[in-house]
Amino acid sequence: MVADKSVTIKSDIGSPLIDHATRLIERLRVRSPKVHCITNTVAQPITANALLAAGAIPSLTTSEDEIGAFARSANGLLVNLGTLDAERRRAIDVALEVARETKIPWLLDPVFVERSALRLDYARKLLARGPKAVRLNGAEFTALAGEKPSPAAVRAFAKSSGTIVALTSKADLVSDGERVATVSNGDALMSKVTAMGCAGSAFATAALAIDADAFAAMTAALTLFGVAGELAAAVSNGPGTFAVAIIDALHAMTPDVVRQHARVADAWTR
Amino acid sequence: MVADKSVTIKSDIGSPLIDHATRLIERLRVRSPKVHCITNTVAQPITANALLAAGAIPSLTTSEDEIGAFARSANGLLVNLGTLDAERRRAIDVALEVARETKIPWLLDPVFVERSALRLDYARKLLARGPKAVRLNGAEFTALAGEKPSPAAVRAFAKSSGTIVALTSKADLVSDGERVATVSNGDALMSKVTAMGCAGSAFATAALAIDADAFAAMTAALTLFGVAGELAAAVSNGPGTFAVAIIDALHAMTPDVVRQHARVADAWTR
Amino acid sequence: MVADKSVTIKSDIGSPLIDHATRLIERLRVRSPKVHCITNTVAQPITANALLAAGAIPSLTTSEDEIGAFARSANGLLVNLGTLDAERRRAIDVALEVARETKIPWLLDPVFVERSALRLDYARKLLARGPKAVRLNGAEFTALAGEKPSPAAVRAFAKSSGTIVALTSKADLVSDGERVATVSNGDALMSKVTAMGCAGSAFATAALAIDADAFAAMTAALTLFGVAGELAAAVSNGPGTFAVAIIDALHAMTPDVVRQHARVADAWTR
Repeated sequence: MVADKSVTIKSDIGSPLIDHATRLIERLRVRSPKVHCITNTVAQPITANALLAAGAIPSLTTSEDEIGAFARSANGLLVNLGTLDAERRRAIDVALEVARETKIPWLLDPVFVERSALRLDYARKLLARGPKAVRLNGAEFTALAGEKPSPAAVRAFAKSSGTIVALTSKADLVSDGERVATVSNGDALMSKVTAMGCAGSAFATAALAIDADAFAAMTAALTLFGVAGELAAAVSNGPGTFAVAIIDALHAMTPDVVRQHARVADAWTR
Repeated sequence: MVADKSVTIKSDIGSPLIDHATRLIERLRVRSPKVHCITNTVAQPITANALLAAGAIPSLTTSEDEIGAFARSANGLLVNLGTLDAERRRAIDVALEVARETKIPWLLDPVFVERSALRLDYARKLLARGPKAVRLNGAEFTALAGEKPSPAAVRAFAKSSGTIVALTSKADLVSDGERVATVSNGDALMSKVTAMGCAGSAFATAALAIDADAFAAMTAALTLFGVAGELAAAVSNGPGTFAVAIIDALHAMTPDVVRQHARVADAWTR
Repeated sequence: MVADKSVTIKSDIGSPLIDHATRLIERLRVRSPKVHCITNTVAQPITANALLAAGAIPSLTTSEDEIGAFARSANGLLVNLGTLDAERRRAIDVALEVARETKIPWLLDPVFVERSALRLDYARKLLARGPKAVRLNGAEFTALAGEKPSPAAVRAFAKSSGTIVALTSKADLVSDGERVATVSNGDALMSKVTAMGCAGSAFATAALAIDADAFAAMTAALTLFGVAGELAAAVSNGPGTFAVAIIDALHAMTPDVVRQHARVADAWTR
């Protein structure tokens, strides 16, 4: 998300990233990836609707008895720590073991780790189990990385964690430990709707499921989701209509619209 | 749901079924049936809102300690297997025992049985406990019935199960083991909104709760819900606005609108 | 909520209460209270969205392992008994102990106590643990207080319970055991949307969190929420669009709009 929408920055690194973003929506519709989401009960409806609108197939069970079967037939796995409970912890264990076997990518969304020491400790353990990517906000980053977010800090944390780190803020930062991309799409209303970040993480998991280049996939997902947010804001009267309109915008998205609105740049060398 | 909306088929068997569909909305508003829904956490908000919009009174607790009391004062019971967990299985046991005692109808919605062998086995056991009706989609039917859906297969499965079977697809099929009705209402956007089928099952449970003719009640419910979907699609920009508009459409539904839009036919003899 | 919207009653006691209502929205935006909500899974999305739209910060975990940490950093606590289960009961115990230590206000919403003897008994025990306020509807009041709602009954129940009692109905009644205020704002559509009362209770908890005068805070919260409902109804086509529009209305609310629409009076001396 960005304050000044009139500034468009496209660096040399930006172009291939924008290509990934541009092609993402059509690839999702052709591939229809199955995304299993272990996510909080608050986020479940908007998460499933965002995935369906974009062409993916969500499933959301958290029962330890069944999650193995669901994970085994999935193409990507989301592990979101909101409303974490004993059942969800057991489900995460089973699902991660399946993901390790089937080699599907999984994404960690460490919701509210700054509010609970137990959850922070648990998130650190999950980080050590090799997620393909982590998606988090500034407060969560600070709690996990031990320093305030910045392009350098995000790159360092990605390098030390051995994973893609995607920090969503006014401008999103994505790093694989070497490169750092900045995504300046989005709208301030996104932070006024509950679980919008969680839905974005699920959407990014769908992108990971169909793109072997995880850095490009995460950047593309944040770009497209941000563009959908901008289109939704343009037809909204507040966060209520916005939450509805962003689902419509994902459903109506086209490569041309993404190409026209995408603002992706190499933040590190800027 | 139907591909070609210009074709209207009304057979001899269709007319009394359409009468049930036409009268359903006013009967729901007069009777205000209490419908207890054991359903998945994803579906709970839209399920409760669909029932309220149509004049029914939803309750949704899944605690084994309390569900007996809720089921005892209910007029109908929905058993939906989404996000199935140990608590829900215990709740289902208690609620079905109450339903057996109080002789209220219950409907089985075997969500995603094709994704989990454990859930498929559990659904088979529930089927043996005598639901008044089963509502499911094509993949779920294939998993449970062991063959692809067709009018003959739906009729055979209804006969062998001793229950009403309602298969929702482009055209819905409803059978009591002898008759087979086809409902050609609905819109493709219904499959792009999470838990729309679950909400339809809850709505059908409300119809079962006030109509002793379960075959006509299920056909009427699918017809009215499909008509609401068509009206919603006409004012929607995508699945986000559609999910909102179908609640408005249920709330504004009148017998005349149902009569005007209903497309119900005897598929078997066609 | 009120039948005849043309009647505006403003007594001597009304004016300071309206001042609280008028100032509430700006105070919420400045203070951004953290409100931890132990609430039912049906209500979670609309509850979180109502709080965010009004400027508060919701959290919703119900895990006994984590809720202590969340409650400790919260400014107010909601205890809503919908979809009550063993996990929620344990979470409530932990959270109330923290609330007692940190002296944050908590609000009890005894959802559906008229449907379950066990839940009624549990609600009585919670009432004895000193909530700052109770928010409930007529059926819940009758079950808990043992008599039909009336200004005198609400006052007597508030006095005997030692808490603020806020009864929502066509006209809302709020009492601290001495005074009784009547809030005549709202719209009939509010009762056609699931968890609207639950969301209102969460909103009232946010008001309690920033206003030491709990009687005025509860009256202000019901007034402002009712005004939002009236504004939403004016732009809605039914309960679907209404549920979306009330979130927009909370987000767009201004002191002037509240002052213009508020209908608060001293019902007892009327």
